[in-house]
Amino acid sequence: MPDKSPLECFDNPSPDRDYVIEHVAEEFTSVCPKTGHPDFGTVTLRYIPASRCVELKSLKLYLQAYRNEGIFYEAVTNKIADDLAELMQPKWMILRTDWTGRGGISSSVEVELGSAPD
Amino acid sequence: MPDKSPLECFDNPSPDRDYVIEHVAEEFTSVCPKTGHPDFGTVTLRYIPASRCVELKSLKLYLQAYRNEGIFYEAVTNKIADDLAELMQPKWMILRTDWTGRGGISSSVEVELGSAPD
Amino acid sequence: MPDKSPLECFDNPSPDRDYVIEHVAEEFTSVCPKTGHPDFGTVTLRYIPASRCVELKSLKLYLQAYRNEGIFYEAVTNKIADDLAELMQPKWMILRTDWTGRGGISSSVEVELGSAPD
Amino acid sequence: MPDKSPLECFDNPSPDRDYVIEHVAEEFTSVCPKTGHPDFGTVTLRYIPASRCVELKSLKLYLQAYRNEGIFYEAVTNKIADDLAELMQPKWMILRTDWTGRGGISSSVEVELGSAPD
Amino acid sequence: MPDKSPLECFDNPSPDRDYVIEHVAEEFTSVCPKTGHPDFGTVTLRYIPASRCVELKSLKLYLQAYRNEGIFYEAVTNKIADDLAELMQPKWMILRTDWTGRGGISSSVEVELGSAPD
Amino acid sequence: MPDKSPLECFDNPSPDRDYVIEHVAEEFTSVCPKTGHPDFGTVTLRYIPASRCVELKSLKLYLQAYRNEGIFYEAVTNKIADDLAELMQPKWMILRTDWTGRGGISSSVEVELGSAPD
Amino acid sequence: MPDKSPLECFDNPSPDRDYVIEHVAEEFTSVCPKTGHPDFGTVTLRYIPASRCVELKSLKLYLQAYRNEGIFYEAVTNKIADDLAELMQPKWMILRTDWTGRGGISSSVEVELGSAPD
Amino acid sequence: MPDKSPLECFDNPSPDRDYVIEHVAEEFTSVCPKTGHPDFGTVTLRYIPASRCVELKSLKLYLQAYRNEGIFYEAVTNKIADDLAELMQPKWMILRTDWTGRGGISSSVEVELGSAPD
Amino acid sequence: MPDKSPLECFDNPSPDRDYVIEHVAEEFTSVCPKTGHPDFGTVTLRYIPASRCVELKSLKLYLQAYRNEGIFYEAVTNKIADDLAELMQPKWMILRTDWTGRGGISSSVEVELGSAPD
Amino acid sequence: MPDKSPLECFDNPSPDRDYVIEHVAEEFTSVCPKTGHPDFGTVTLRYIPASRCVELKSLKLYLQAYRNEGIFYEAVTNKIADDLAELMQPKWMILRTDWTGRGGISSSVEVELGSAPD
Repeated sequence: MPDKSPLECFDNPSPDRDYVIEHVAEEFTSVCPKTGHPDFGTVTLRYIPASRCVELKSLKLYLQAYRNEGIFYEAVTNKIADDLAELMQPKWMILRTDWTGRGGISSSVEVELGSAPD
Repeated sequence: MPDKSPLECFDNPSPDRDYVIEHVAEEFTSVCPKTGHPDFGTVTLRYIPASRCVELKSLKLYLQAYRNEGIFYEAVTNKIADDLAELMQPKWMILRTDWTGRGGISSSVEVELGSAPD
Repeated sequence: MPDKSPLECFDNPSPDRDYVIEHVAEEFTSVCPKTGHPDFGTVTLRYIPASRCVELKSLKLYLQAYRNEGIFYEAVTNKIADDLAELMQPKWMILRTDWTGRGGISSSVEVELGSAPD
Repeated sequence: MPDKSPLECFDNPSPDRDYVIEHVAEEFTSVCPKTGHPDFGTVTLRYIPASRCVELKSLKLYLQAYRNEGIFYEAVTNKIADDLAELMQPKWMILRTDWTGRGGISSSVEVELGSAPD
Repeated sequence: MPDKSPLECFDNPSPDRDYVIEHVAEEFTSVCPKTGHPDFGTVTLRYIPASRCVELKSLKLYLQAYRNEGIFYEAVTNKIADDLAELMQPKWMILRTDWTGRGGISSSVEVELGSAPD
Repeated sequence: MPDKSPLECFDNPSPDRDYVIEHVAEEFTSVCPKTGHPDFGTVTLRYIPASRCVELKSLKLYLQAYRNEGIFYEAVTNKIADDLAELMQPKWMILRTDWTGRGGISSSVEVELGSAPD
Repeated sequence: MPDKSPLECFDNPSPDRDYVIEHVAEEFTSVCPKTGHPDFGTVTLRYIPASRCVELKSLKLYLQAYRNEGIFYEAVTNKIADDLAELMQPKWMILRTDWTGRGGISSSVEVELGSAPD
Repeated sequence: MPDKSPLECFDNPSPDRDYVIEHVAEEFTSVCPKTGHPDFGTVTLRYIPASRCVELKSLKLYLQAYRNEGIFYEAVTNKIADDLAELMQPKWMILRTDWTGRGGISSSVEVELGSAPD
Repeated sequence: MPDKSPLECFDNPSPDRDYVIEHVAEEFTSVCPKTGHPDFGTVTLRYIPASRCVELKSLKLYLQAYRNEGIFYEAVTNKIADDLAELMQPKWMILRTDWTGRGGISSSVEVELGSAPD
Repeated sequence: MPDKSPLECFDNPSPDRDYVIEHVAEEFTSVCPKTGHPDFGTVTLRYIPASRCVELKSLKLYLQAYRNEGIFYEAVTNKIADDLAELMQPKWMILRTDWTGRGGISSSVEVELGSAPD
């Protein structure tokens, strides 16, 4: 299972202010643990930083590490949310995955941490 | 009538967290009990898991088992909702079917169990 | 005037649950009582069943019976609503008609019975 | 100025029920009282009837009578609203006009009578 | 600076009623006071009249008078709002300008006077 | 790092009134401090002025000064917000950046200062 | 079977010139001779007149006469083409019918008489 | 394998004329002979009849008979083409199938018999 | 009448090659010589240069000079074409103007000089 | 002026076959030699290779080198075309630039080398 070691942070340039950051990765791929077939999806991260922000290139490399990982939609969504939450300790965060159809079924999973901004 | 035996679960990887999962199966087909003609529709499942999640391939096989079943729109919608609710005991669930036109009439049925998330 | 005898019911498969059923008939036609010209429209039925559901093919035949009936938009909408309400005694119901333009004027009529679902 | 004599009513077929009727006339034309140039617009009537409904063909003829009338947007909108209100005494009514551009300016006027339905 | 003398009013044909009038002028042009280059934009007026309405052709001529005026977006928006408000004394008014891009930047300014209608 | 010296103000022409100004700069570019590759994005400024407004051409020149600056999305967004806030002291302000995809990931950052208008 | 007696002609006002006339009737309806259910479709007539043109209101009445006629798609298309060709003797004509779906199948039939225009 | 016995013909009402008939069946389903999973597609028939036309309801029943048939895309397309060609002996015919995606791949197969119309 | 003095040229950087240059000016405005009202349009220049190209900023200033010129659509189109042709002596050139509607009529004028490219 | 040294080639894997390659770079930026303001555009390369193909990352770095270059649209288009043609010696090539608007004028330049494919 990919660990979160590729993820890097940098100091929030404006830690005294609440503001919203969004990253949308449209080319995520992992492997279905049941069938061995590849899954394709979009990962959306939306958060209000506390003292740290995730660095974008490290996020890209971290997400690429799931390429050959056999993992359920629900598990990968929660794991990415957990890794990013542990790393950044954000004030609020949504992690959402949207998966293209397989066998005629398309899916999505959405995790929210902390209280939504007004 | 298809029983729910093909349905399989796996443990919710993050049971302490409320999050939303959605599966949309666009190629559902069953048979009209009145005329014997085939019906075609889309099945949408949206839920917050408790301790268990439905496994996607087993969901596909379960839905395929209605292929030659003579059953009303209203009955198949409630039966799928009941089978999935009994299997997963989710905290909240919507099961919706949207049917393509037959004789110039298109239809939909929507069942909601538990309280909607905020 | 078409009576409601073609309409048939079947028992609500889940009478203990509130859920929503929708049928949209896009090929409704009747006759204008003023000019004798044909009218064309869409009939939308949306309801929460109590103990009975309307059977789809019988609904189609019932609606076809208006084909040569001279009747105002307002009257046909209320009559269909009344016939279906008397037949099914639903918990809640909307009956709406949308008419294609005639002489540059398009029209719609909407009847609601009971309290709207939350 | 066109009087309301072409307008005809018929009895509301369901006077004990509140329901909504809409007519949209896309081919309305009158004349600008300032410049003498023709104006083109759409007239939308939306109402809940009390004891009477306006008959559609008579509405068409009434609206056609404005064809050579020199009248401001604001005046024609209020006059149609007044004529229909006096004729039908509806429980609630919206009369709206939308005018295509003249000299680079497009316009609309909307009148509401009674309390909006829930 | 254009004065408001070209603007003309006519008596509100229905002063006892609250209703909404909208005029959208898509071909407004003035001049940037900083660079001398022309600005192009759309002016939207939306209001509930009290005793007077603005006459449409006079509004067109009034707006054309800004053609060679060097004036900031913010100033022209407030000036038009002030001139129309002083002229008509409306119950409620929005005056909005939307400007096409200049140097890769597009802009808009919106002024609201009085309380918005329900 | 670009200082805010190119930014110029002019007096708010209507300081006693609350109104909203928006500028959208679609051709912003800076440099990624991690990889040295260029970043491309849109900068949106939306605010209610107090006594001063930002002059548009000076805003354009100020934004162009980031062309060869190595700076994170989060930092540039906050710096522009801070520079404009210090300059204009607006009653309310949103500064938002939307970045085109790099390595399959697109991003946005949004900062809000003061209380949103009703 | 409807005869062509309602159809009327008028003299082609420019018989020395080849030009194209098109009429599209979107509300055609007849009855399926196999099942007795209503069919709905669009009838498109496109032609270059010789000495005579078909009068529009008579065409509408002629097409309405099929309302309760049991007739195959192929037969009704050829019959309308034959009736119009006999009546008008056009230089060139296309008669096309497009039928909305029945039992999941939509259909069209197209007849061309004479040589297509360049 | 479905035989062609449900297919019925009727006499071409205009055998002396070349004209084009098209039927599009959007709800075709068969079974993949390799995996046992259902396939979903659209069947398009386009032809110029000689002495016989295929009757529409019999075509629907014939196509429904493939519902539980394990057969490759290529084979089903050719078999339907062969059955219809043998039945009708058309002057010209195209039989095309378009299949919804399975495992990220969508497919189509097209067979043409006789010479295309000009 | 604006003379062509603001127009500047620079040497065609690749005079030995035929290639196509296009400039589209969407904010052209002049004045109607008949009514005195402003006209708004788009000017499109498309050409193959010989030894000289028109410089873009000088083209902008040249076009702005028509702002208060009373001139017919046809005249302004031909004058711009003549000025640019005399200046650049291009191998081939199209000059087209597209005018927004006035009194419900929109117009365009297109001038071509030299032989069109293959 | 950027030289073509960053550009790298690789051997055409199928030199005996004519086929078309297209690269579209949407984030090109250079500087206007007249005003010093940045230009933004899209560069499209479309070609049939002979013995060599351009390597994609080297193309990206080559195009980025124009970031601070003062150069006319026409010159940059021809220079890129020349550099790529000299490097690859393609059988056929189109090099096109499309520039976002500046001062209300948008532009494009297109160079074609060799004979177009059929």
